[in-house]
Amino acid sequence: MSEPAQTLDGWYCLHDLRSVDWTSWKLASNEEREAALSEFFQLIEKWNDTEANGQGSHAIYSVVGQKADLIIMLLRPTMKELNEIETEFNKTKLAEYLIPSYSYVSVVELGGYNPSKSDEDPYQNEYVKSRLYPVLPKTDYICFYPMDKRRQGEDNWYMLPMEDRRNLMRSHGMIGRQYAGKVKQIITGSVGFDDYEWGVTLFADDVLQFKKLVYEMRFDEVSARYGEFGAFFVGTIADSNRLKELFYIKEA
Amino acid sequence: MSEPAQTLDGWYCLHDLRSVDWTSWKLASNEEREAALSEFFQLIEKWNDTEANGQGSHAIYSVVGQKADLIIMLLRPTMKELNEIETEFNKTKLAEYLIPSYSYVSVVELGGYNPSKSDEDPYQNEYVKSRLYPVLPKTDYICFYPMDKRRQGEDNWYMLPMEDRRNLMRSHGMIGRQYAGKVKQIITGSVGFDDYEWGVTLFADDVLQFKKLVYEMRFDEVSARYGEFGAFFVGTIADSNRLKELFYIKEA
Amino acid sequence: MSEPAQTLDGWYCLHDLRSVDWTSWKLASNEEREAALSEFFQLIEKWNDTEANGQGSHAIYSVVGQKADLIIMLLRPTMKELNEIETEFNKTKLAEYLIPSYSYVSVVELGGYNPSKSDEDPYQNEYVKSRLYPVLPKTDYICFYPMDKRRQGEDNWYMLPMEDRRNLMRSHGMIGRQYAGKVKQIITGSVGFDDYEWGVTLFADDVLQFKKLVYEMRFDEVSARYGEFGAFFVGTIADSNRLKELFYIKEA
Amino acid sequence: MSEPAQTLDGWYCLHDLRSVDWTSWKLASNEEREAALSEFFQLIEKWNDTEANGQGSHAIYSVVGQKADLIIMLLRPTMKELNEIETEFNKTKLAEYLIPSYSYVSVVELGGYNPSKSDEDPYQNEYVKSRLYPVLPKTDYICFYPMDKRRQGEDNWYMLPMEDRRNLMRSHGMIGRQYAGKVKQIITGSVGFDDYEWGVTLFADDVLQFKKLVYEMRFDEVSARYGEFGAFFVGTIADSNRLKELFYIKEA
Amino acid sequence: MSEPAQTLDGWYCLHDLRSVDWTSWKLASNEEREAALSEFFQLIEKWNDTEANGQGSHAIYSVVGQKADLIIMLLRPTMKELNEIETEFNKTKLAEYLIPSYSYVSVVELGGYNPSKSDEDPYQNEYVKSRLYPVLPKTDYICFYPMDKRRQGEDNWYMLPMEDRRNLMRSHGMIGRQYAGKVKQIITGSVGFDDYEWGVTLFADDVLQFKKLVYEMRFDEVSARYGEFGAFFVGTIADSNRLKELFYIKEA
Repeated sequence: MSEPAQTLDGWYCLHDLRSVDWTSWKLASNEEREAALSEFFQLIEKWNDTEANGQGSHAIYSVVGQKADLIIMLLRPTMKELNEIETEFNKTKLAEYLIPSYSYVSVVELGGYNPSKSDEDPYQNEYVKSRLYPVLPKTDYICFYPMDKRRQGEDNWYMLPMEDRRNLMRSHGMIGRQYAGKVKQIITGSVGFDDYEWGVTLFADDVLQFKKLVYEMRFDEVSARYGEFGAFFVGTIADSNRLKELFYIKEA
Repeated sequence: MSEPAQTLDGWYCLHDLRSVDWTSWKLASNEEREAALSEFFQLIEKWNDTEANGQGSHAIYSVVGQKADLIIMLLRPTMKELNEIETEFNKTKLAEYLIPSYSYVSVVELGGYNPSKSDEDPYQNEYVKSRLYPVLPKTDYICFYPMDKRRQGEDNWYMLPMEDRRNLMRSHGMIGRQYAGKVKQIITGSVGFDDYEWGVTLFADDVLQFKKLVYEMRFDEVSARYGEFGAFFVGTIADSNRLKELFYIKEA
Repeated sequence: MSEPAQTLDGWYCLHDLRSVDWTSWKLASNEEREAALSEFFQLIEKWNDTEANGQGSHAIYSVVGQKADLIIMLLRPTMKELNEIETEFNKTKLAEYLIPSYSYVSVVELGGYNPSKSDEDPYQNEYVKSRLYPVLPKTDYICFYPMDKRRQGEDNWYMLPMEDRRNLMRSHGMIGRQYAGKVKQIITGSVGFDDYEWGVTLFADDVLQFKKLVYEMRFDEVSARYGEFGAFFVGTIADSNRLKELFYIKEA
Repeated sequence: MSEPAQTLDGWYCLHDLRSVDWTSWKLASNEEREAALSEFFQLIEKWNDTEANGQGSHAIYSVVGQKADLIIMLLRPTMKELNEIETEFNKTKLAEYLIPSYSYVSVVELGGYNPSKSDEDPYQNEYVKSRLYPVLPKTDYICFYPMDKRRQGEDNWYMLPMEDRRNLMRSHGMIGRQYAGKVKQIITGSVGFDDYEWGVTLFADDVLQFKKLVYEMRFDEVSARYGEFGAFFVGTIADSNRLKELFYIKEA
Repeated sequence: MSEPAQTLDGWYCLHDLRSVDWTSWKLASNEEREAALSEFFQLIEKWNDTEANGQGSHAIYSVVGQKADLIIMLLRPTMKELNEIETEFNKTKLAEYLIPSYSYVSVVELGGYNPSKSDEDPYQNEYVKSRLYPVLPKTDYICFYPMDKRRQGEDNWYMLPMEDRRNLMRSHGMIGRQYAGKVKQIITGSVGFDDYEWGVTLFADDVLQFKKLVYEMRFDEVSARYGEFGAFFVGTIADSNRLKELFYIKEA
């Protein structure tokens, strides 16, 4: 039996992706659209307050391509809160014009391959806490994808000795560190919560850095031999101005 | 020819997952919504009676993410009863506002790798009976996923000698036992009934325990080499208060 | 080049699965529903006549779970007749309330691994004829699934010598024979007709026997190494009383 | 680097499969239905003229099972003409009652493993021309499926030396030749045009010959080790009488 | 750890594929259709200006088969512009009659296996610039498909030493060069942006050259052992005349 990795787990996470039903949205009256947006902005305002109070965080981006139009990433202390927010959002007027396109349920995770330096409780460590309960960046671009570690024939991550996995992860992490300052990475674990084992969310002001980082990592043994990737979603920041633009319909 | 495992089989099981069609639900009048909910609560009341009479059990949870909004897990002595309940539910007013999203048909199963202690009829053993005909827990969270044992190249569970399978399952079971008191697990067999070979339903008050348990097991050879997993669904308890909240629409 | 198995082929077979659109069905008036059912029962009456005349057979079951609500299994001497029945059914009033969910096209097949006992024409043998042109049982439960023989790396059924395949099939058949009297099995071949190579339809009064049979077979090398399975459908008998119950809507 | 096979390429080919939306079709008035059919028959008349002029060919069959109701196979000298016919068909009245279910884009191909007998230009050879620009048979049944040659581990068709591929294809072709007079086969190549590498269309008056041919070939190494198959569609001839029958709705 | 290839990256790219909802389009009045087309042509005019100003490029083709009716390929200096164009297009009148069928997000890429000739900045090289920021050809036909390099067992591209990958790519490139003047190829990288690693877009006046090129390459080790291909889309040029024809509806 292989030795399992120990993880540290922080806020629960919901990635909620929606497509706009443009035909219905355009059929709505100006008043209906304004009411729907105003209600949505109030919801965001509430989320902003939660974030300001250190009780969670969120990010909203406009997705490129047909997979979705919006990606909303939500962090909260409990799964129950995510469930409630989701229900609240589903009941908004705006949601009537949105088609669910994908979602992902996970929890912020710090991987178990970093040797702990002392007998300190990591959950009390300020640096660890800042990573388990992060304020999501407001960079120009987001990239999200779920992934698995492969268990196939000779390439079975979960059958490797802990020592090998630790060495592989160390070299893997060194690639990530080269992108420090360029790409901010949030790893969320989803074993037992959703269909893949992890969600990877990347934030950057230069969208090309996503490609460079993911491509460079693909040559690293951890990804080359052991990575299985789900769908990739890339988006541009949707602050309130962009949201207004996105949903703006010129009067006929 | 490999020696098959012998199983004990209890109540038949239906996992029925539905998504709310929020736009239609909001378009309904207050009266229609109240009537629909009242009818649904009467149905639940009937299920409660069945459970009180030891003739079955059920659990209702609100699913996190877009895969579904509700998961209803039903246990009954016969497959026919499940089929009738399903039809009855499909004819309710509430079902007109629900979109089928996934279902799973199986039967409560006790695995065949536990050496029988005597020549006692296990179906008469009180402990065995309590596990074959269980009252489903009312924990805060549920986790459900279907799974297969792999039959692929060198990793073919069904070609292993009984002795090897028994040893592997014993060590696997020991992980599960570490979660006693934290996670309650119901295994249902679905060979010949549905697309995977088993359904796994976990109950816990701390949702993180699902992740810890499933992740730890993934390093165990039974999962690492032989586990193939379907979709994962996680939900929060939907007692009558939560159901009322979930379906509550504020008057415009 | 491997030696192909010779098969005997009987009646053509269509498995036609449909889901009820309950919302539309409930919106129909009592008169419309009665007219639709009456027309459907007349069609079944016609099928009963065909069966009585030895010109085909059929079975109708109510499917458990969301994959479908009805499974109609039809046997006829020609593929053309199946196509015509299908069209006739599609034009009925009831079909307007049914959503196609799955279908399977095949032909009753007796496998080519049984040594022929003499130089007799098997198509004239009464026992063979009773199996190629069977009257479908009216047991309480049905189980249907399509399957392939695997062609993958070392596990390639079609590259095995005839002698090996015959030996494997003999031991496989012996498991089946243990279920004689409990499970009735109809094998239909679908190479060149549909996406899998065979359809397996099982009939039993005790639904648990499906699980026992399929699970026991999975440990046999033919299934363990060479079986690839499609979706499994399980249903309860839908005689005219059950059909009336199934489609009955209480007046509001 | 492996030596590529040289192919001869003839008419471009579109397989266009559609399902009838029976509910809408029945809602149409008798006049609308007659107008729609009359327009469709005029289109077919135009296709008949094209065929008579040696500028293409077509075949129309009624598909068995739920995958589609109609399969229209079209051959034309240019891809552009296929695109135009498709657009023309999409604009017909009948198309409003048809739901696209599958399509396949390819070109009639003669495989590159037949040794050329001389230095003759094959495109001037009358026999070759009759096969590159065929008039499609009007047999009772059609069978269509797309397929790939496998590239997986040890079973990689494209890594085999030309000589081996030629020998394998020769033995494969010998099976086909045994069905001469019973099954007419049209191979169309689709590398670069659609998702599989080839389309196989079979024509026969005895539908069972499809099963016999495809099953026998499956034991041949070319299929056993190197064949990957897509969906199979089988249909019965839809001449104008059958089309009238198929689309006929009895006045209520 | 394998040495990653270095890439040069140019304009961002969106392939946007849509199907026409013919029934709705025909239901629109002549005026509505003309207004929708006129608005679409104005948008194209704006894109033409952008292209004339060297700030991007685009191509519009009519897709053969049911996968889509239109493919719009857009190149722009930033991902943000693509997102804005997509939103602008979604809000047009014409988009109300189009159903999203597929999209692909990538960036024009020059592969990293060409030895750089000097210490010159490649982004200043005129030839390199013409390929990173290309004006898309207006050939008669387009072919688009996404693809991956395989990472499976012994066939793991990302585990090969740089030298081997370079040699393989060189021989691969030599095939492409034989099609110079016949096929123009644009490679776009999509690691981190979309579900495959690359998009391949081919342009030719003779559609058969797509098949010849892709088939010949399939025998080359890079494709034979290491290529994994997504869906293939082929289309005919849709200049303004063809667009008018495509969308033209004869008055009833």
